[in-house]
Amino acid sequence: MCFIYVPHATAAVTINENADPNITKDIIKAINKIVPEHDNYLHDSIDNNAAAHIKSTLIGVSTAIPISSGHLQLGTWQDIFLCEFDGPRSHRKVIVEIIKK
Amino acid sequence: MCFIYVPHATAAVTINENADPNITKDIIKAINKIVPEHDNYLHDSIDNNAAAHIKSTLIGVSTAIPISSGHLQLGTWQDIFLCEFDGPRSHRKVIVEIIKK
Amino acid sequence: MCFIYVPHATAAVTINENADPNITKDIIKAINKIVPEHDNYLHDSIDNNAAAHIKSTLIGVSTAIPISSGHLQLGTWQDIFLCEFDGPRSHRKVIVEIIKK
Repeated sequence: MCFIYVPHATAAVTINENADPNITKDIIKAINKIVPEHDNYLHDSIDNNAAAHIKSTLIGVSTAIPISSGHLQLGTWQDIFLCEFDGPRSHRKVIVEIIKK
Repeated sequence: MCFIYVPHATAAVTINENADPNITKDIIKAINKIVPEHDNYLHDSIDNNAAAHIKSTLIGVSTAIPISSGHLQLGTWQDIFLCEFDGPRSHRKVIVEIIKK
Repeated sequence: MCFIYVPHATAAVTINENADPNITKDIIKAINKIVPEHDNYLHDSIDNNAAAHIKSTLIGVSTAIPISSGHLQLGTWQDIFLCEFDGPRSHRKVIVEIIKK
């Protein structure tokens, strides 16, 4: 199993289709509707990025993909995406670990 | 640990209650409100299933359940559900791996 | 890897910032807007907590954190939260397992 972890509170990781680049645009637009910016969030008075924190919790900071014969068993239409909800940033860290069956 | 992975971009996996079948109906209805069909998604012009992709990212394509003495440690009210957001399909694949503590 | 599992259908686990306690308040308020209480859910006629079940599926009942040299590799702004959507309860169980790289 390939375990992927994003050690950030305003980012996330998801798996979805990469073939049509419009899918990521649709996902970003949908998440922005589900979690509107500056919706009277208390944290915005400190750091102005509360929506990014909420999106991180909704999508999640970890995922995992099975491995077989040394290859990620992603589906035909799957790819792995880092979700940046409070960028652009010059640095984001992603931790990847391989875990034995 | 029992690791469950759905290698699809318009499906997902979740854990919730199975005792009252109305819960899954409530969940489906709620997700359909959170992610409305055909909400001016760009991908709909190609494949008409953008909402299914967005739902897959919201719910997630993997989960895991602890194992003790060979038994899944699901809670009393928990069961595992494949979420089909773009069906019905004749085939969907689910990958299950057992990972040692 | 530290694997965390919540064996309940009306709770969840998430990772987010703990430094500003307003973030958890913002997250709770946002989730309550995304999943309104008593929105004609069928399950409410039996147990009156359908919204809690839906929230559990949205946030998820498991997560995992990498471990290095015996320490959780949480990001600077990350902490682990049990999400109680149907409380207060006198008891909630959380299962934690350590899994080798």
